[in-house]
Formats: sequence, C-alpha cells, structure tokens
Amino acid sequence: MENAELITFLLSHDNFLILTHKSPDGDAAGCAAALCRGLRALGKTAHVLQNPGFTPRQEPFLAGLCVSAAPEHATVVAVDLATEGLLPAEFSAFSGKIAAAVDHHPSNTGYAPLSLVEPKAAACGELIYALLRALGAPIDADTASALYLAVSTDTGCFRFSNTTSNTLRVAADLKDLGARAAQINRAFFSEKSRARIELEKRVLSSMEFFADGLVCICRLPREWVLETRATEDDTNNLADLARSVQGVEIAVMLRDAEPGRSKLSVRTGPDYDACAICSHLGGGGHKAAAGASIDGNIPALREAVLRAIAAEGVAL
Amino acid sequence: MENAELITFLLSHDNFLILTHKSPDGDAAGCAAALCRGLRALGKTAHVLQNPGFTPRQEPFLAGLCVSAAPEHATVVAVDLATEGLLPAEFSAFSGKIAAAVDHHPSNTGYAPLSLVEPKAAACGELIYALLRALGAPIDADTASALYLAVSTDTGCFRFSNTTSNTLRVAADLKDLGARAAQINRAFFSEKSRARIELEKRVLSSMEFFADGLVCICRLPREWVLETRATEDDTNNLADLARSVQGVEIAVMLRDAEPGRSKLSVRTGPDYDACAICSHLGGGGHKAAAGASIDGNIPALREAVLRAIAAEGVAL
Repeated sequence: MENAELITFLLSHDNFLILTHKSPDGDAAGCAAALCRGLRALGKTAHVLQNPGFTPRQEPFLAGLCVSAAPEHATVVAVDLATEGLLPAEFSAFSGKIAAAVDHHPSNTGYAPLSLVEPKAAACGELIYALLRALGAPIDADTASALYLAVSTDTGCFRFSNTTSNTLRVAADLKDLGARAAQINRAFFSEKSRARIELEKRVLSSMEFFADGLVCICRLPREWVLETRATEDDTNNLADLARSVQGVEIAVMLRDAEPGRSKLSVRTGPDYDACAICSHLGGGGHKAAAGASIDGNIPALREAVLRAIAAEGVAL
Repeated sequence: MENAELITFLLSHDNFLILTHKSPDGDAAGCAAALCRGLRALGKTAHVLQNPGFTPRQEPFLAGLCVSAAPEHATVVAVDLATEGLLPAEFSAFSGKIAAAVDHHPSNTGYAPLSLVEPKAAACGELIYALLRALGAPIDADTASALYLAVSTDTGCFRFSNTTSNTLRVAADLKDLGARAAQINRAFFSEKSRARIELEKRVLSSMEFFADGLVCICRLPREWVLETRATEDDTNNLADLARSVQGVEIAVMLRDAEPGRSKLSVRTGPDYDACAICSHLGGGGHKAAAGASIDGNIPALREAVLRAIAAEGVAL
C-alpha cells in the first residue's frame, strides 16, 4: 500500500491529466474524480480527460473536472486501468505516455513507469483513498462521495464476495467525511428505470430451467432492448437474475447483439466451470464468468450451449 | 453505549434464557444466537427460547442453542424487542419477567428493569457486538456470523439510509473475526427462490403507473401466492419493487389476504405522506411507510386508494 515513490512524484509534479478505461464503471469514474479533486485540494492543477463512456448518473461526480483535450505538458495518470488496450479509442495517443497508474487488477501490465497495483483491493477506490491520505490531501464531502461511488460499485454495495474488512472500513471513513451514501445507494443500487423494470419482467418470463433447476437459460432479444428504449446501463448485469435463483449453478444469458450474430454469457457456482462451457463454442473467460459468440440466432445458440453444458457432464 | 450495570448483571448471573420478538428477522435471530454463544463462551449456561417464527434460513445460526421451554429459575434477557406486546403469543408467560433488554427501537417501552436501548444503532447487532466486547466474551466465527446476519439484515446489506459508519466498522470487525459474509450475503441478499422469482415477475406485470410515473400501483392476489406455493419469506418486501422504479414517489401494493378483505401498503418518498394517504382508508403508520385494510376486493381497494391519493393533492 505504501508507495513513497508515487507520493513523491505526485507532490513534485503538476498539471495532471487523469484518464481511465473505456465504458467506465463507478470505480473508474469515482477514482478519476476523487484523485483530481484531491490533487486540486493540494493546490495542484488537475483535470479528468472526458471519457466518452461517462454516464449521466456519473456526471454529477465529475462536474467541473473534465477537459476534452489534453493540456500541454500534462502529467498523465491512469486509474483503474489494467492495460492501455482498454483505453477508449479516442485516447490512443496516450499509449506509452502514462507516467503513473493506480490500479487493482491482477492483470495490470505495468504499462506505467510508476505503478501502485494492489490486486487484494476490492475497488481501486480503496487505493485512491489511501493515496489521498498519504498525500495529506483534504477530503471533502464531494471527494468522499466520489470514493464511496467507487468502493460501493465494485463490491455491489458491499454484497459481493470480494468485499474485505478494509473495504468496509474505508466506506465507514467516507461516511464520516460526508459521503452522500444513502443518495448514492438509492441511485445506483435500488432505483431502476422503467425500461429496466420492463426488461427484468421479460427476462424473468424467458427463464427456462434444466437439470432439476441447476441450469437456467434466459434471453434478451434485440427487439426487447429497442422496444423498451433501454440504455446500455439498463441492460447491465441482467444475467445476474438467472444466477440469483436458488439452486441455479449454471446461469446462461443469450443475446442477439447484431442480426445473425448471437452471444452468450455464462455464470457458474463454485462446482462448475463457465470457461470450459464457453470454450466448446470458441469463447473463454474466467471459471465463474465467461462468454462466447456464434453466427446464428438465439434458438441456435440455445441448442449449442445446451450441448456444451451436457458435454461438461451435466445430465439435462 | 456503556452500560456498566448491565455488564455487572450479566457477569454476576447465570442460566440465561434469551428471547426475541415474533416473526423474528435476521437482527432478532442473529442477536439471540450471538448473545447466547457469547455468554456460553464466558462459561455461563445460556439458551435461546425456540421462537415459532425462526425460519429455515435462520436455523443454522441457532443450531444447538434453543430450548422449547424455560429452564427453572432462568435469567430472562430480551433482544431486539420494543415491547412485550411483540412477543409471540406462546411467550406470554414471560411478560413482566424480563430482567434485562438490549434493543435499538426508539419505541422501547422500558419493560425491563435493566435496559440498553440505543436508537441510533441501525441494528441491535451493533449493540450486542459492543456488549460482548465489553464483557470480554470470545467471539468465534459462528458468533461473528450471527452478528453479521444481524447487522446486514437491518441495513439491507448496508444499502439502507440507516447504515452508519459504526455499522460498517462493526461489519469490518466481524469479517476479521471470521464471519461468513459472502455466504450470508448470497443466501439473504442475492438468492431468490423459484416461487419468489415467479411472484416478482407477476408483480412487475401488474404495475400500473399514474401521474406521469409518480404513482405506481401493483398487486399480489392470494391466488398467486397459492399457485407459486410461496412462503411468507417469499412475499416479504415485494412492495419495494414499486418504490424502486425511477420517478416513483408513491408506491402502493394491494393484497387480498383473506376472502372479502383487502389490505394495502404504501411507501412514499420524502415529499409525500404515506400515513396521510392511508388515513383516508382508516389506516395509519409512518410518513414513509403506512398501511390500511378494507372490506372489499383488490379492484375496490384500487379505486379507494386512487381517490385517497387524489385527495392528498396528486393530480392523477
């Protein structure tokens, strides 16, 4: 957690430009905002590079912090970025120019000469919090709120198994520093758009169970997304619905993202291997979460994944 | 938080019988189990009085702790109990015989001569944890798990607005003490029974919106509960679905609990008054959550509540 070199670097430089990965989640957006605000509170000039993926719900945390182009001679710092390959296409000019990185991905490639990488941290926000403390940067309610967004997002509001006692203690400190936790929890973890509610209803209706309820397959056809005018945000984590059903250890979500092309995501409990299932379809991923895509429609993909699950020894 | 008299009392007595309120939630069951285990760890004899409302999911936390009748000359301690009126009917003999109470309800009536009541605590579990620490009672992984169940239940897994920094720090300590947080989070906050999934799908389908989406009315007819073989546990908090919809400030759930009799629950955002709405129907409650019941079926109740909402100044 200590990184004296990074601290010295930040204290001895100025004109910071902070960037993060494409499709930024709350951890990415919250860390960028908090680091920027913390550096400013130390009297530095700092900006966040406007990310094309920032969502309307994230914008209040970034108000007044973003620039659309890099200031001259900026000191470039990346947060929550595992590899330069995950930068938005618009940021490609920054490849090889990132001076420092703060990240929690075990797959961090070490692209930055100065890297604070701690894979045990559930959220990059835990590292930014420790860094701001080590820097002696004042943390006001807005900075605390951005960090709370970061740590709560990556832990499903402290529900996921990656949550550690440090995550909870950081969240406690942030509440004491004025983080608007109740408001953030409602907006990000309770509230659902009308489109999301309609999609959930349809996805629930599409659920098929196999192998005595061990396997659940659901679908999200492109028409449903269009009909409900759902945003990308609205379709996030819909596969969790299937995995949340009691007894389901293999949860499959089928989508036809573009005509003639279908993709699936598979999530499994500890006794099954999502990656092995997806590898039958030319896909891959992690043991607990993997994916694949094929030429064909949803019914064809449904047949293919059932064959793959059977090939992995599940009697359907 | 200090209560030297209660600590002296617990250390100088023995043969404890711990009881809690009817329809015990995770805070009640977890506190009863943890206090019992903590007292045993101090070398005391202690039991939990078997509560008819303990659920199958709570039982593992209570294994080996319960008795179905009071031992002779027991020292009776209540946890999470606001008033003796909330005891299960089977426990009525204990009225007036509760020697000590640990509770976090502001409405605690002071029924016990020795009371540790702290309304600022989000969960009674926070108080039991502090008490066990003050008693010097060893806290093993099972005790920590029971306390984690307690604090997570009353805060919706740290999502509700009652969560304080103390709640989060207690949860952090409990994780460090070996609480099986990930397992508890999945069983109580992620996993849903097949019956629950079916009910959610039907409740979502029943949603009607009024006043530009400000009002949402949904229903849970008795037949649906019967058809899905849902348990009481499965029907809990289904009204939250309506309140979680973006823009909904007045959420109404209609049920026909018995033939010819219907009841509604109303939950409102900060600018509306659930109690005022329900008072038009002879009901009551709190500003944010209230209820009422009428003679009549669900359609009749739907008309009546729409009139009540209009009478409160909402243009439908």
